[in-house]
Amino acid sequence: MLTEMDIKTVVIGGGPVSSLIVLKPARQDEKEPLSLPIRIGSVEATAISMGVSPEGGARPMTHDLLKSVMESLGGHLRSVIINDVSGTTFYAQLDLVGADGHQVVVDCRPSDAIALAVRCGATLFAEQAVLDVAGMPDFRAIEDQEHDQEIKDFHEFVEGLSPDDFT
Amino acid sequence: MLTEMDIKTVVIGGGPVSSLIVLKPARQDEKEPLSLPIRIGSVEATAISMGVSPEGGARPMTHDLLKSVMESLGGHLRSVIINDVSGTTFYAQLDLVGADGHQVVVDCRPSDAIALAVRCGATLFAEQAVLDVAGMPDFRAIEDQEHDQEIKDFHEFVEGLSPDDFT
Repeated sequence: MLTEMDIKTVVIGGGPVSSLIVLKPARQDEKEPLSLPIRIGSVEATAISMGVSPEGGARPMTHDLLKSVMESLGGHLRSVIINDVSGTTFYAQLDLVGADGHQVVVDCRPSDAIALAVRCGATLFAEQAVLDVAGMPDFRAIEDQEHDQEIKDFHEFVEGLSPDDFT
Repeated sequence: MLTEMDIKTVVIGGGPVSSLIVLKPARQDEKEPLSLPIRIGSVEATAISMGVSPEGGARPMTHDLLKSVMESLGGHLRSVIINDVSGTTFYAQLDLVGADGHQVVVDCRPSDAIALAVRCGATLFAEQAVLDVAGMPDFRAIEDQEHDQEIKDFHEFVEGLSPDDFT
């Protein structure tokens, strides 16, 4: 079973910080919001975000060329599917239609698949099995919890102070 | 007029050092050897050198996917042509054959073109006009000259020494 996904955020890491793309179901369950975080290379993270908001005047990048070559050969990207995960390694497939109208499926990395999808306006899907294994409670909910805990800790700290601490 | 080119060297830069690919005519004129140095991104330099000597077990990179998509759609890369230069910016074209046997030409960056060519075993060409503008005397010749000059300078330095300098 496939779930349609949206891009929630792209984090372009640097140095020791990994780059990350976080997907979420296009139709979120408000009670149990879900995130699908996928670690990707910083080059691919940049390629995805430049596909989302292209910089005018910049030279076409490799994924722009991938789109040009595909379209020049009469191909069309119908959708991309995050179809498997093993440990923290995700796998994806391009669902293409060739010039003769036949379906062509090509295996690839999720980062390449998403960088192409954003350029082609193609739909993103994730296999339910992938969401079952690698889906996480929504990050925002975790952040809110952490924020609440931080305020609680601070209040406890302040309440534990004696008047002597202020002198 | 097109000249068939070979890859002479790929320099993968880092920090302030640019990455570079140096092409040379496949049939060099021994009297006037020529180099065509093209500044490229370090990511593209890595993509080219991994295409020349693939690392076993590594996940397919974007140019591997470009090849897969092209071939899945019945396309074939005949050659790539470095067809123009403006300042230090070079332009290239992929000379593809589509599934129906028709020629398809796609504009791209030389780095993408070469990274794809090395994966497909396609021939590299440069327009004569590009070689006229951007071709340089062969680097090796320059290095040899510099080496000769260095030895000459050292000999002059030694000859200029007086016995007192050794005490």
